[in-house]
Amino acid sequence: VDPVAMAEARTHQDRLTKPRGSLGALEDVAVRLAGVAASCPPPLPVPAALAIFAADHGVHAQGVSPWPQEVTAQMVANFAAGGAVANAFAAQVGASVTVVDVGVAADLPSMPGVSSRKVAYGTADLSQGPAMTREQALQALAAGIETAGDLVAAGNRCLITGDMGIANTTASAALISVFTGRDPASATGRGTGVDDAMYQHKIDVVRRALTANGYAEAGAVPQGQDAVLQALAAVGGFEHAGIAGLILGAAAARVPVILDGVIAGAAALVATALAPEAAGYCVAGHRSAEPGHSVALSYLGLRPLVDLELRLGEGTGGLLAHPLVSAAVRVMHDVATFDSAGVADKER
Amino acid sequence: VDPVAMAEARTHQDRLTKPRGSLGALEDVAVRLAGVAASCPPPLPVPAALAIFAADHGVHAQGVSPWPQEVTAQMVANFAAGGAVANAFAAQVGASVTVVDVGVAADLPSMPGVSSRKVAYGTADLSQGPAMTREQALQALAAGIETAGDLVAAGNRCLITGDMGIANTTASAALISVFTGRDPASATGRGTGVDDAMYQHKIDVVRRALTANGYAEAGAVPQGQDAVLQALAAVGGFEHAGIAGLILGAAAARVPVILDGVIAGAAALVATALAPEAAGYCVAGHRSAEPGHSVALSYLGLRPLVDLELRLGEGTGGLLAHPLVSAAVRVMHDVATFDSAGVADKER
Repeated sequence: VDPVAMAEARTHQDRLTKPRGSLGALEDVAVRLAGVAASCPPPLPVPAALAIFAADHGVHAQGVSPWPQEVTAQMVANFAAGGAVANAFAAQVGASVTVVDVGVAADLPSMPGVSSRKVAYGTADLSQGPAMTREQALQALAAGIETAGDLVAAGNRCLITGDMGIANTTASAALISVFTGRDPASATGRGTGVDDAMYQHKIDVVRRALTANGYAEAGAVPQGQDAVLQALAAVGGFEHAGIAGLILGAAAARVPVILDGVIAGAAALVATALAPEAAGYCVAGHRSAEPGHSVALSYLGLRPLVDLELRLGEGTGGLLAHPLVSAAVRVMHDVATFDSAGVADKER
Repeated sequence: VDPVAMAEARTHQDRLTKPRGSLGALEDVAVRLAGVAASCPPPLPVPAALAIFAADHGVHAQGVSPWPQEVTAQMVANFAAGGAVANAFAAQVGASVTVVDVGVAADLPSMPGVSSRKVAYGTADLSQGPAMTREQALQALAAGIETAGDLVAAGNRCLITGDMGIANTTASAALISVFTGRDPASATGRGTGVDDAMYQHKIDVVRRALTANGYAEAGAVPQGQDAVLQALAAVGGFEHAGIAGLILGAAAARVPVILDGVIAGAAALVATALAPEAAGYCVAGHRSAEPGHSVALSYLGLRPLVDLELRLGEGTGGLLAHPLVSAAVRVMHDVATFDSAGVADKER
């Protein structure tokens, strides 16, 4: 990101007809987007594209979700038919929806808006050993990077991350534990609705995943490209790799990416461990109800824009933030200065 | 609000292809709007209209703001010219902007989008005695009620409150103190930017306002129409009365009203003290950085949708919330049910 454009954006904010700093966190968003685009004012983040990475998880066999695994494929069909909440929110904010099958455990029929980049029919069970091979992780990462490239080439000026994968909050918890050094108990949540007994079991499964893959010692955060890829392959999911790739691809194209919830937070930890400068291209769309998401956001130093206890995924929290990001940028284009409007400035 | 439509909305939410409750606070918004419209699904809250009530304050003479009083009139001209942040946000969310002069301390030229309902050239100094006569308060209330009626008659299906008035956070703090029984120190904030010395002085001015008007005894919250009107007249502003009227008018027309920040919070305390059922028609757009706003929201039992430390007013926080409200309602229209989409439900 460009520090000159950011400084220019801060100065411009202070000339506009509003008390200095009165737009709170939105002023930081506008400044950040100026840095991303290396121009002040930055372009409006439109059109925006939601990319939903869909995949299944071997760890589902451990009973970490009350939902059958088939729901992943069924929801992909629901996205293609326009019937999911992500579709409703995308229509509301004017974003397109692209689904990328990076590892759904079923053969999907050809559907509009769904592209096949299937790496495998779901990951292996991360509580027993590595979820993916290193090659598979790289393949899913590449799918994300290329998806970003395709969406930007198609004219999109803002990418939004989305995910679909029954049991993917378990892999997210494992990734967040590994990449922040926090205990599984503080990184694991109730996902889309597990009861007390299943919640304790889920924490235990995450703990076993760390042990099985050699990450049981807290605080040994992976550093360096090899170690990061190994950790992603060990306890991640194909959609985490795909989203990490999307973030890297967006950063490479100097386009902002709005992160959704805990799956995106886990993926952003991977992306920024691979390329620390990618963090500057991320806007945290929302804070989900998953405790691990707050752990990830705080580690990433990102402040979420929407905080309404959503726990749905799909990109829904990222989509909700898009109008806020647009509003923050629009201020830089439309609002008069004290001079131009003939408004008196503060006296002291 | 209609409890049958609300119950129907809750049931419908649970049939949609998403984990139950996974839209967090947005599910409550959709249910609330079903109650407002007495229909499920409720209509989309479009078109939306922002109504900015502008007025001046005699208490400005006490040195409670670093901004000159002339800025109120200058900002009205800025709204009319489309140059304020409220205009940028309104353009972003597709809302119209109407300015109502209920008491600006200057003769305003005729401007498009600005209607004159001037009650007086600013209020009297509330730290010395009543800010308005009872007749003046009623006149400003009526302006708000009629503005709501006009906007709904013009086809609007969502109203958003806005305000402009240098020194109006002082009157807001006094109203919030009186209507919640809280000490002025917890109801008073730094407004659009006062330093430490001015802040202590501002609290002292609010305290003097309560003493001068007979509200020094904490906890004597006004009850009954006469007492409420008297308190509004004593320590309020014309824009508070106007916004209280807008809320009452929206409720009468069964149209939801999105509240902006601390000025709207103070006005909502007045409106709901006059007609408790009006609370059901209000959606709290955001939580401002003003501490008194949190006091008011908590007293009203409203949860804000946006919480980004804005402290600008004008309706900016209310406008930012509008896409979130629309998204919440759109879910009720667009999203498939488990049955219709062929998606398996949770197993337990």
